[in-house]
Amino acid sequence: MASAPRIYSAALVVIGDEILSGRTHDKNIAQVATWLQVQGIRLKEVRVVADEVDAIVEAVNTLRARNDYLFTTGGIGPTHDDITVDAIAEALGVPVIVHPEARAILEGYYDTRGGLSDARLRMARTPEGATLIPNRYTGAPGIRCENVFIMAGVPSITAGMLDALSGQLEGGAPLLSETIGCWVGESEVADLLRETEKEFDTCQIGSYPFWAEGKTGANFVIRSVNAADLAACTRALVRGLEALNKPAIAGGI
Amino acid sequence: MASAPRIYSAALVVIGDEILSGRTHDKNIAQVATWLQVQGIRLKEVRVVADEVDAIVEAVNTLRARNDYLFTTGGIGPTHDDITVDAIAEALGVPVIVHPEARAILEGYYDTRGGLSDARLRMARTPEGATLIPNRYTGAPGIRCENVFIMAGVPSITAGMLDALSGQLEGGAPLLSETIGCWVGESEVADLLRETEKEFDTCQIGSYPFWAEGKTGANFVIRSVNAADLAACTRALVRGLEALNKPAIAGGI
Repeated sequence: MASAPRIYSAALVVIGDEILSGRTHDKNIAQVATWLQVQGIRLKEVRVVADEVDAIVEAVNTLRARNDYLFTTGGIGPTHDDITVDAIAEALGVPVIVHPEARAILEGYYDTRGGLSDARLRMARTPEGATLIPNRYTGAPGIRCENVFIMAGVPSITAGMLDALSGQLEGGAPLLSETIGCWVGESEVADLLRETEKEFDTCQIGSYPFWAEGKTGANFVIRSVNAADLAACTRALVRGLEALNKPAIAGGI
Repeated sequence: MASAPRIYSAALVVIGDEILSGRTHDKNIAQVATWLQVQGIRLKEVRVVADEVDAIVEAVNTLRARNDYLFTTGGIGPTHDDITVDAIAEALGVPVIVHPEARAILEGYYDTRGGLSDARLRMARTPEGATLIPNRYTGAPGIRCENVFIMAGVPSITAGMLDALSGQLEGGAPLLSETIGCWVGESEVADLLRETEKEFDTCQIGSYPFWAEGKTGANFVIRSVNAADLAACTRALVRGLEALNKPAIAGGI
């Protein structure tokens, strides 16, 4: 048997009081998760922390030690509550510098926009030893430092930074998935799901119930890095549902 | 001077592979955060963890030790991937029992829905010593155990459980907030924001930039538990923006 493929893992730290207060609905968790899947990297854990240096340092140091990659979103703008760079420099044990390349980018960007003030120059600050992640929208770049990727909090800007990183990170076999929908209460098929997952030990089956059109339904998501196992497990689950007189709906409901 | 009011804090653990895979967009962080504000409880930190006992135990034990309350969402259904109750019992060092009251609720609920199968009976399992949180929608209750509140993952059911808990938890003075919008780049007012926050040390000012109608704008959220300080700080910020010829828009943009 071939050895199990290497799994590459990542964690995400979402930084911002506005998420914890409920004012802003986070969109970056789903966005980063979806992007990582395509890169063949598994998102293992997420933390949302306040705009506080100690909270950021704790999350960054814990999570980057046990994952291949650590991403952060939020807190890299020009205002007093943007403390991500300082916190991550502290976590990494390096000083904060004004990055010459970032300064040049911001000088160019603000040349026709009123010039580079002290506040704007804050966005050229990075932990020492960093490289930059391009930001096609607003000049101020993201930052890569060791295995830490520091990105913007505004989702459209985060999206541009992720796009710039696409294909740049070493990943493993992407996690493949199939989705089956069924008009059934998940408690009616709990045994089938458990038995099927046990039979295919390279696959996981997730069960996601919902209520729609006045009826109980569920989507079942089968995941595996092995395409053949994924197909076989999906077929087995479809047959099992048919045997219970519950037709499966390919692609989910 | 009066002593600082006691701050009540909470943490949230969102449990579910479906969030980490990007398949499901979490809605519970914002929902729990907003509800906690009304209860006078501050959401301090959130973690999203996989459907794995060790990951849940670590998150629950770390966060419940340093917060007044810990909430979890997800993983309390009838299927094999619903392991939250087992994990939290392990975290608390107590056995899992079939809760008599939960069993009675489920017997009543499933009486006209095909009866109480083994899979459905899984939803009556709780850590020993628990009390129940009513679920008006689908029978299966949420669970309170010490300072841990175990809730459903489906947002509409979570909402019902939060509603049942409203006014039940001891909280402090609610955090009040005012929002001001302004068509200004946040880098142009960074000094003003920092100086104003420094002047009112019981207030925090958050700055949330956006792009709309082809222009740069920002909303500024001033937060305080002290209504008089909040009003004074807001007035000072409005005056400061006016002095820069940038009219403030009450309530935000």
